[in-house]
Amino acid sequence: MAWTRPSGRQADELRPVRFERRFTRFAAGSVLAHCGETQVLCTVTVQPGVPKFLEGSGQGWLTAEYRMLPSATPQRQAREFMKLSGRTQEIQRLIGRSLRAALDMKALGERTLTVDADVLQADAGTRTTAITGGYVALCDAIAYLLSTGELEASPLRHQIAAVSVGLLHGEAFLDLDYPEDVAAEIDFNVVMTEELALIELQGTAEEGSFSRTQLNQLLDIAETGIGELLKLQQQALRSS
Amino acid sequence: MAWTRPSGRQADELRPVRFERRFTRFAAGSVLAHCGETQVLCTVTVQPGVPKFLEGSGQGWLTAEYRMLPSATPQRQAREFMKLSGRTQEIQRLIGRSLRAALDMKALGERTLTVDADVLQADAGTRTTAITGGYVALCDAIAYLLSTGELEASPLRHQIAAVSVGLLHGEAFLDLDYPEDVAAEIDFNVVMTEELALIELQGTAEEGSFSRTQLNQLLDIAETGIGELLKLQQQALRSS
Amino acid sequence: MAWTRPSGRQADELRPVRFERRFTRFAAGSVLAHCGETQVLCTVTVQPGVPKFLEGSGQGWLTAEYRMLPSATPQRQAREFMKLSGRTQEIQRLIGRSLRAALDMKALGERTLTVDADVLQADAGTRTTAITGGYVALCDAIAYLLSTGELEASPLRHQIAAVSVGLLHGEAFLDLDYPEDVAAEIDFNVVMTEELALIELQGTAEEGSFSRTQLNQLLDIAETGIGELLKLQQQALRSS
Amino acid sequence: MAWTRPSGRQADELRPVRFERRFTRFAAGSVLAHCGETQVLCTVTVQPGVPKFLEGSGQGWLTAEYRMLPSATPQRQAREFMKLSGRTQEIQRLIGRSLRAALDMKALGERTLTVDADVLQADAGTRTTAITGGYVALCDAIAYLLSTGELEASPLRHQIAAVSVGLLHGEAFLDLDYPEDVAAEIDFNVVMTEELALIELQGTAEEGSFSRTQLNQLLDIAETGIGELLKLQQQALRSS
Amino acid sequence: MAWTRPSGRQADELRPVRFERRFTRFAAGSVLAHCGETQVLCTVTVQPGVPKFLEGSGQGWLTAEYRMLPSATPQRQAREFMKLSGRTQEIQRLIGRSLRAALDMKALGERTLTVDADVLQADAGTRTTAITGGYVALCDAIAYLLSTGELEASPLRHQIAAVSVGLLHGEAFLDLDYPEDVAAEIDFNVVMTEELALIELQGTAEEGSFSRTQLNQLLDIAETGIGELLKLQQQALRSS
Amino acid sequence: MAWTRPSGRQADELRPVRFERRFTRFAAGSVLAHCGETQVLCTVTVQPGVPKFLEGSGQGWLTAEYRMLPSATPQRQAREFMKLSGRTQEIQRLIGRSLRAALDMKALGERTLTVDADVLQADAGTRTTAITGGYVALCDAIAYLLSTGELEASPLRHQIAAVSVGLLHGEAFLDLDYPEDVAAEIDFNVVMTEELALIELQGTAEEGSFSRTQLNQLLDIAETGIGELLKLQQQALRSS
Repeated sequence: MAWTRPSGRQADELRPVRFERRFTRFAAGSVLAHCGETQVLCTVTVQPGVPKFLEGSGQGWLTAEYRMLPSATPQRQAREFMKLSGRTQEIQRLIGRSLRAALDMKALGERTLTVDADVLQADAGTRTTAITGGYVALCDAIAYLLSTGELEASPLRHQIAAVSVGLLHGEAFLDLDYPEDVAAEIDFNVVMTEELALIELQGTAEEGSFSRTQLNQLLDIAETGIGELLKLQQQALRSS
Repeated sequence: MAWTRPSGRQADELRPVRFERRFTRFAAGSVLAHCGETQVLCTVTVQPGVPKFLEGSGQGWLTAEYRMLPSATPQRQAREFMKLSGRTQEIQRLIGRSLRAALDMKALGERTLTVDADVLQADAGTRTTAITGGYVALCDAIAYLLSTGELEASPLRHQIAAVSVGLLHGEAFLDLDYPEDVAAEIDFNVVMTEELALIELQGTAEEGSFSRTQLNQLLDIAETGIGELLKLQQQALRSS
Repeated sequence: MAWTRPSGRQADELRPVRFERRFTRFAAGSVLAHCGETQVLCTVTVQPGVPKFLEGSGQGWLTAEYRMLPSATPQRQAREFMKLSGRTQEIQRLIGRSLRAALDMKALGERTLTVDADVLQADAGTRTTAITGGYVALCDAIAYLLSTGELEASPLRHQIAAVSVGLLHGEAFLDLDYPEDVAAEIDFNVVMTEELALIELQGTAEEGSFSRTQLNQLLDIAETGIGELLKLQQQALRSS
Repeated sequence: MAWTRPSGRQADELRPVRFERRFTRFAAGSVLAHCGETQVLCTVTVQPGVPKFLEGSGQGWLTAEYRMLPSATPQRQAREFMKLSGRTQEIQRLIGRSLRAALDMKALGERTLTVDADVLQADAGTRTTAITGGYVALCDAIAYLLSTGELEASPLRHQIAAVSVGLLHGEAFLDLDYPEDVAAEIDFNVVMTEELALIELQGTAEEGSFSRTQLNQLLDIAETGIGELLKLQQQALRSS
Repeated sequence: MAWTRPSGRQADELRPVRFERRFTRFAAGSVLAHCGETQVLCTVTVQPGVPKFLEGSGQGWLTAEYRMLPSATPQRQAREFMKLSGRTQEIQRLIGRSLRAALDMKALGERTLTVDADVLQADAGTRTTAITGGYVALCDAIAYLLSTGELEASPLRHQIAAVSVGLLHGEAFLDLDYPEDVAAEIDFNVVMTEELALIELQGTAEEGSFSRTQLNQLLDIAETGIGELLKLQQQALRSS
Repeated sequence: MAWTRPSGRQADELRPVRFERRFTRFAAGSVLAHCGETQVLCTVTVQPGVPKFLEGSGQGWLTAEYRMLPSATPQRQAREFMKLSGRTQEIQRLIGRSLRAALDMKALGERTLTVDADVLQADAGTRTTAITGGYVALCDAIAYLLSTGELEASPLRHQIAAVSVGLLHGEAFLDLDYPEDVAAEIDFNVVMTEELALIELQGTAEEGSFSRTQLNQLLDIAETGIGELLKLQQQALRSS
């Protein structure tokens, strides 16, 4: 390989991933998701009602908000105020779309789930960690609604996980950390279901371009990573 | 095919595409790009200097703004005010990234090109039309800078075009118009160079998910469409 | 004359004026109005309901929005955001008031017409071009409402046109272009009906002051110009 | 006359006008201007420097801000926040332009005068009262700058006063109060110099239209009113 | 005493205090409160209805807004726009809480009183002057509601007054003016009822800290001042 | 006692308090402070330079930002956007003032410390927990600056802790939790130094009023609580 990972990881090796469930008490689901040094607090809260365009449809909704705490990065970053950056809006739209794919909205009924992804520490991969951790919090929130009788049947229809992959010196690597993210020529975010079906695919050439062969290498490695994340989510959800 | 196109087009057939160059006079490049009923006015203006993070680097910059006129859609849409929607921000970031890939920023030098993409009429595909038409306006702006002696050599290093593709009833279709866009299960935007190398790939499952086989079908059809757009751009640029 | 017009026009001569009807398809009325190099896209859209202060009155309303595209001027201008400039607000209030004078609001009924005046190219006289072109788009919108049976009788009660006049070296000139607008001591906008009755009169001494004799000279020349504009509107509306 | 004034005033009679100079202590000029029940606190403050577009020109500048206190009207009005209404912006631009006409900006030198017109009580005519009272405060501010030696010669070159006139039942009336303002078909604001030369003329047909004959009647009556206001300003400025 | 007051006042001596009732005509209560050079226009307006959280409770509400006119201070201050400063928000919350303590909200019924405190001139003590003067305006507003029959019984249950006290060179002083306010180590605002019971106590060490002994000295002197203010309010309210 | 604490605590008993130091890695100081169920992440970051009003003074500055995560409360709360609530601004000003009292700004030199207090879980007492925990994070940040040689001597001059106290049924209680906070008639926040000297005292009668005797009871109990908090801070700082 032309690129040796600073962390010593293999090209297709994830960083250590961990989900601390019930990190806070008031949200229906609350998970502190760790992916290496990246830490995202994912909470799911439930509110009655749905946005205007769904009123009376009998369907539910899920929306996401994403923010970084100012101290999450080595240089303090000002809080976003007055208007969200384009980057933040893109990320929270991606999180929302991805986790909506987990749900049967008819079965959820006219209630709104809000996924708040607050990044406590950022070492790249915050959006994919938010999706993967957000799924765990979503399961806890659904379990809570079932336990209180608010829901009779689970609206969960897919397990969802996400990972970033990238090209460095023309080769594919899994789960980039910050120094790798900066060095990567191509940066991909991949969201998949429990069957490794694609939900979302976003790839950008920061420099140069990429071929369809390279695209396939990136997707192969993403499948490996997501396969592992799906298992780690299951393990976390089995533990009480 | 399970889906018959309302327009009678073939699955891999573009809508009629046309570039009206020099549509307005004050911008260095000004192109009214038509793609079927979609009309986007793409202008490129030149300003000295670069954003803070590039000052003193000797490199230039290109940035994009995207807006819809309120009367561009069948129902009047309010102008975006106070804050841009997430959709608008995503689109203008995509246009900017895609057209930056056309340029050698060192050769451009410390000046900023602004691509304004104002949608006069929207019938789906506005962001890809903005990129494809924006490339033509960019060529005109560079030609202008060369003619005035502001630039000695062209910083253009790649030709760029973009197209949307989507899955309808599980099959791949090129260049969706509005009724198709609404009906599509999967929606992709693809940006490529003159060699059909990938610059950007964004695919979202609005409903369901997609396999890697389907991804390949979508990319095949996108290559066909972009190949044609590259020729149409060349024709437009050859005409005086 | 102390001032020779750069364009060679007579003191009481309009620039070439042209109205491209049905410039876009989705608005009820859509006119690209040209006045010399000035180009304003005037669209009229129809929405049910009226502002709060008119609810239940049986009366309709007309409101206007005015913006310049960033590339409309030789130097790119930033889009107005967060707050509209005082100039923009003055202009859109003027357009709204002037075109409301064309209508019998009772006959319009409880619907709101929105006139969007988007300046594609600015060479002075944008607000008066927006009014004169907006009237043509308004006629098309009313014709559309009559053709669909939404309206049974036309609420149009006056034809409206507007022109700018100014004093240069103490003499009155019609329809100033940009270099003249900058040089003018006194700048007037005049809005009149088909009978040359005054609807709005706004004059500002940018430098010095003006006498009532000069005011009369300005109004004489404005009457000439508006007389001609009224004919050009009629011609445009007669052509299919 | 078809209209009998509720106040019993003659058609060409002003309301009682009074200027309380030095109403507050910290501004260079501070005048509480009364025109009937209308009360506007006009202050003039002086700051070094000028806006960017004048830097290095050796010229000074005057700018105006206009606001209503929430309790100035019979129904409390919310403070303008986030964005100023079009009405407020039009008014403060008018006040600024009118009072700039009083000054020789070269003689003022590179300093900025800010006229704050805060309406304590509103019974129509607030903008013209702000101009007429603002002129008195401006004289006090200039006198202060002369007394401290900041200025060696007065930059005042014109005396400025303003009045509103309107058509009611087709006839011209001077200085409308609130019930008249609401009933008027045509509403004019007129700003003139000590020689009754016109500085600004703004007339709007709220209903119907007006002829040039009526315009002349309105201007005749405005001259009468402004003539009187010019004398009242002089009297106020002579008193210590 | 280590500190000699620039004004020659005793340590426990108020500045001259005066309440001009009915300063403007349209508000139910309108008082121009003077405390030395500090002038605050306090108006109370009445609106039907209450904020959401009180709807249907049968209780009324009182809210306050506080602003400085730009010319209130020796250096002109920009108007607060887009967002209120933290200082302004703290002050208007304090005024609101303090004057709510004067009222039996059940007896007021579902209406909202708005206290606008607009500082015309600022020489320290503006927030306490706003409370003390606002109480007088509140009494006038209640009297008005009783006189019109809108209220049958007075909801006033406490008389409220406020004063500032501070430590200078370690000793307690009453009613600081601006030069004292700047020099004070400790700054207290004290709000009390007619029985000298405490409603609000806010003390901040700008420099150093303070002991409980000093706190008691400050409260002793505040009681003296508030005792006097309570009498002055009564006198003002007795005069017609 | 008329009030029995739901938690079974004594009137002068704190909730369990715990400081998790180095909770995140990128800030110079990072402490997750627990006070019962209340959890506040307090980070201190260091930036070169100071606000304008201190430039060139040789002095440093400390500022604070306070926010609640949306999921911190049983009902999800919208993020504050566009403008901060008055409550939030009051709190962050209080945190900033209180922690500035800990520092010798001359010894800090021209650098700015930012204390971010992000409430992960809110059960009353968030502002006092932010101050008490923020002090621990501040010590860690100063130790870091000493360890890197950025500072030669510690600018810490006071230890700072804060607690809330309140009156319930007329008696004083320490460290109110949420159900108590809602029920309290009087609510006090007290900030003190290592010598129990007062830095800040803020008391508000939500209902009724309070006597000076009650004030003294509240301060007695606050001294007890702060004495304990000072010891807990010391213990946390001694542990590595």
